[in-house]
Order: sequence, then C-alpha cells, then structure tokens
Amino acid sequence: MKIISEEEVLKNYSMKQCIEDVERAFMLSKRSEIVVPFRTILHQGDDGAHTLYMPSYVPEINYSAVKIASIFPGNEKYYIPRIQSTIVLSESKTGQHVANIAASALTMLRTGAISGVATKHMAREDAKTLSVIGCGVQSYGQILAIMEVRELEKIYLYNRTKNKALDLKEKVMNHYPDWSGDIQIVDDVNEAVSKADILVSSTSANTPVFSGKYIKAGTHINAIGSCEPIKQEYDVETLKKASKVVVDTLEGAKGEAGGLVIPDEKGEWSFENIYSELADIVVGEKAGRETDEEITLMDSVGVGFLDTVCAASIYESFFIKRH
Amino acid sequence: MKIISEEEVLKNYSMKQCIEDVERAFMLSKRSEIVVPFRTILHQGDDGAHTLYMPSYVPEINYSAVKIASIFPGNEKYYIPRIQSTIVLSESKTGQHVANIAASALTMLRTGAISGVATKHMAREDAKTLSVIGCGVQSYGQILAIMEVRELEKIYLYNRTKNKALDLKEKVMNHYPDWSGDIQIVDDVNEAVSKADILVSSTSANTPVFSGKYIKAGTHINAIGSCEPIKQEYDVETLKKASKVVVDTLEGAKGEAGGLVIPDEKGEWSFENIYSELADIVVGEKAGRETDEEITLMDSVGVGFLDTVCAASIYESFFIKRH
Repeated sequence: MKIISEEEVLKNYSMKQCIEDVERAFMLSKRSEIVVPFRTILHQGDDGAHTLYMPSYVPEINYSAVKIASIFPGNEKYYIPRIQSTIVLSESKTGQHVANIAASALTMLRTGAISGVATKHMAREDAKTLSVIGCGVQSYGQILAIMEVRELEKIYLYNRTKNKALDLKEKVMNHYPDWSGDIQIVDDVNEAVSKADILVSSTSANTPVFSGKYIKAGTHINAIGSCEPIKQEYDVETLKKASKVVVDTLEGAKGEAGGLVIPDEKGEWSFENIYSELADIVVGEKAGRETDEEITLMDSVGVGFLDTVCAASIYESFFIKRH
Repeated sequence: MKIISEEEVLKNYSMKQCIEDVERAFMLSKRSEIVVPFRTILHQGDDGAHTLYMPSYVPEINYSAVKIASIFPGNEKYYIPRIQSTIVLSESKTGQHVANIAASALTMLRTGAISGVATKHMAREDAKTLSVIGCGVQSYGQILAIMEVRELEKIYLYNRTKNKALDLKEKVMNHYPDWSGDIQIVDDVNEAVSKADILVSSTSANTPVFSGKYIKAGTHINAIGSCEPIKQEYDVETLKKASKVVVDTLEGAKGEAGGLVIPDEKGEWSFENIYSELADIVVGEKAGRETDEEITLMDSVGVGFLDTVCAASIYESFFIKRH
C-alpha cells in the first residue's frame, strides 16, 4: 500500500496532466461501461456531520477506488477543515489495494480540471479576462485550470470577505512568477461579472450572488459552487441568457445542481433545455462554442469516476515518467 | 494518516486484547446505537470478482471505519490471496481519517475472538479438548482465541488435504513453545468430532462435512465457515442436538448462515428456535451454558462494527500503553 500525502499529490501531479486525465475519463465514460454505485452516507452527530463513501470502477483502466469524504460543519472551532477526504485505490485485475491518497488537493485539481475541459471547448479562443466569484480553496484550482487552456491577461477576484481574495491573489501570483498578467480585487460582484470573458462562480451561496444582466455576450461561465439541490448560486436570467447549458452528468445535475433544479421545479426553466453533457462535447458528438457572441454555461457538481481516474494517474506517476 | 501493516497488527495486537474488544463491542451494541449501513458490492469481471465496502460507526468510541474487501476467486493463478482487505479508520469528533490498517490479520483475530467470547460463556469450564474441522487461515485465529479462554490439553486437526493441517500444527506449536498439550492430525473427520469438548467448524463446504451423531454431550460448537445462505457446513442433526443455538447477529445469520437458512427453508428447523444473539449472553440477559451435558452451538458470519472497534483499538495501541 503506497501512501500519498497532499504534498506529494501537489508535487507529482500537474494541472496539465489532470486536465488530460479528466478529458480522457469523460471519453471513457462515453465509450465503455463505468460502474458508479450509489454512495453511502453515514450521519454522525447532531450538527449535520456526515461521511460519504463513494466507490467507482473504471474497467478500461483496471482500477476501482473509493473516496471517503467526511463533512463536519462544526470543525471550524477546532481549526480543522470542514471537508476531509482520502481515496483508497485498488487495482482491479487482482483486487490489490495499492494506494491511499490524501484527496483534498486531488479534489481541488480535478474540480478545476472539469472547468478546464469545459473552458477549452466552450470559451472563446481569444478569452483574456477571467472573473472569479468566491475565493475559497476550489477557486485556486479553477484558476490553475483556466490558465492552462487560455492565455489570460487579467483576473478579477470577488469575495464577500476581502481577505480571502487577497490570499488567493498572492497564491496565484506565487504560482506564476513569470506571468505578465495581473490580478485585481473588486468590491462589486457585478463589476467582476461584467468584465468576464470567462466567469467562475464558486460560492456556497443559497441565493444568487450576482445578476445575469451584467453578463456580456461571448462569456463562458463555469458554475461549480452550491452543489445542493436547495442552493441557487446563479439566477434564472443567467440561465436563460446561455445558449448552451452543459452539465458534467445529467444524473448528478438533476440531483444536486440547485441552480438548475430550483428553476426547473418553479417552471422558470426546464432540464429539457440542457444542451448536452460535457462528455458529448469532449468526444465531438456535440459542438462546443460556435459563435463569438453566444453565452455558454457549464454547471458541475463533480462525478466519482473522475476521482478514480485521477487517483490512478497520481499513483502511476510514481512509477512512470511522463513527458 | 497512520499506516499499519499486517506485521504491525500481529505485533501490537494480542488475541487477549482482541477478545476484550470484541466482548466490549457486543456490550456497546446492546446499550447504544451502532450504525451499520448496507454494504456496497462492486462487481468486477466475469469470474465473480467483487469488492465489498462495509462502513460502520460506533458513536460511543468516537470512531467510524470502512472495511474494503476484494474477493477475487481467480487470484490463485497469480499466487495472490483470494481475499484482500484494508480498513480506513476515521475519528468521529472531527471526521479526520486517522489510519489505514491492513485487515487480513485483523479479520482473522476478530473472527477468532468471536469464538473466544462464545467459548468463554458457552463451553464447559473444564473443556480440555478442541477439534478443528478445516485448517485454513481462520482456524489459526480460532485456536489462538480458544487457548485464551480455556486450558486445553489436546487439539485434533482435520483437513481434507492433510498438508494444511500439518502447517497449522506447526504454526500453533511455534506460537506456544511452552504449552504442555499436544496436537494430533486425524484422517477421519468424525473421529475429531467425537473427541471434542469444543468443536470448531471452519470450512468452505457446500454440504455438511461431519455427522451430528458423533457429537458427544457437553460439546460446544463454533461454526464459522460457509458464510453464504446456500452453503451448509453442519447437518440438521447437529442443529437439533444443540439445546442452545446462538448467532452473532440475527440479521447476519438470516442473510448468510447457510447452516441455519437451508434447514429453515426446508422446514427441518426454524429460526424461531434461536436461543439468543451472542451479545445477549455477554451482557447477562441470557444465560450461557447451564449444564455439563447440554450441547451448544454458535454460528458466526461476522459483523461490521467489530472491525471498527478492533481497528480503533489497534490504532490506539500505538499511543496508549496497555497492561
């Protein structure tokens, strides 16, 4: 059993590789069977603490894995992260359990990579400006991924508490010491929205935090926050302005994407308007962006088999030298 | 994340401690809530290979754990064990994943300890002779456990292929260099049965391997093999001769104990005749052995929360010095 720490994941696994892996995983999901059993929820205590067990099996790469994620809302008082996750990777020719991989960095990277893949296919080729609404840990992965697929010149960061935006700015600047672009913190969320060629919405908001009316023509939106059916991060106007609404998986979106579920339930919008799953665009069954003016939206709630594919890639990176 | 290998489990975790832990776990299961969600089965390949994910949560000790067991029947051709298991232990105050514990030795020890607890309460105090039918890896744990609770003078071993019995004899003799008793290999299974004060049946047989008519008065039987509803390791006569039939959990027995399920379905015996769960005897709600003459039987298929309690104990043994 190989133990792989957060530090080792960050050192051995690049966003470039992760985007390749996620794109490949979506491709596999279209051409062969992937097994994703229902996840198991174990409730612990009265404050909503729970642990999720999320197994999945990707026959074509010969690995299965289970992600174990504990979500403990009360952890802030102990200065311990609210979400703690780890992955056990098993080789599926003989069932050997080959690795235990700390999964916070992995989750951040693969969540970023989903947006990276979506942005690659759906944002304008000449997109230069990224606006990020919400500056938590996931937003760092979003920026790394989008920097990988577009030549950005400007990043706008908005966060309710400004210090988190400043921290994120510093982290990104340290990661790209040679980058010629710059990062600006903004106080007005809609100012950030109005300037975006690419917009990332990554908050845990219950109700929309920005107004769709400020989104300009040609913007691509990655909405990755609020992954609960009762949380609506972006408004219906945003949804209606988008000529293409894409999800990572339709099943996941119907269960967890509040930005879609709530308008669908209210009759303001319908799941029938979904353009496609992201995998359909990856394999070329559906077109990505077709005009410079269209507004596109990708809502991601994550999908378990990506964890298995990324975990296998991280494990193999210790044995196989890559380009 | 602390990684604990098979070798470290065997070095740090005694059968004596394991029996204490299993007895305590049964006690906890009677006086407080233990959460055992349905296990998840992930089928892999055409030869029956599958992986089981078995989470459980024991609030009173503040730990949850998931046992991940891959069962790959085709492994023999690679000289790899058919069953490979590992446990991820999580502390349940903050959800931190604290240990990854190799679980083959743990399973062997805790399966032994169940029989140890049953034997302690149900065998005659003056039991001197143990007969073991089937000499696979679990039987070693059975002997360690029973040696812990009774002063044995003689052990009879029976196995279809004699070499496995010889191997087990050697292993046990090495473990107890100062033991004054002796171990004899027998060729006739019913000879072993007829000599037993305590009988362990630990085979993967589909149909009964010994005849109940050879069981003498006063024998206690631990039946721990054939944990599938279609496998019947002991015959109906054995069952009917027992004045007390005890199971580790009724739910588990009804699902997996073929020795009980098959006679119940055929109308030859009924689950209504179950005397109690083992936990009822541990806490004193039900009597264990009451006369020197009665024949008692404990059928165990294992139960997930014991793994969590034992895993927690193993983990803590690295930090807490015990007597």
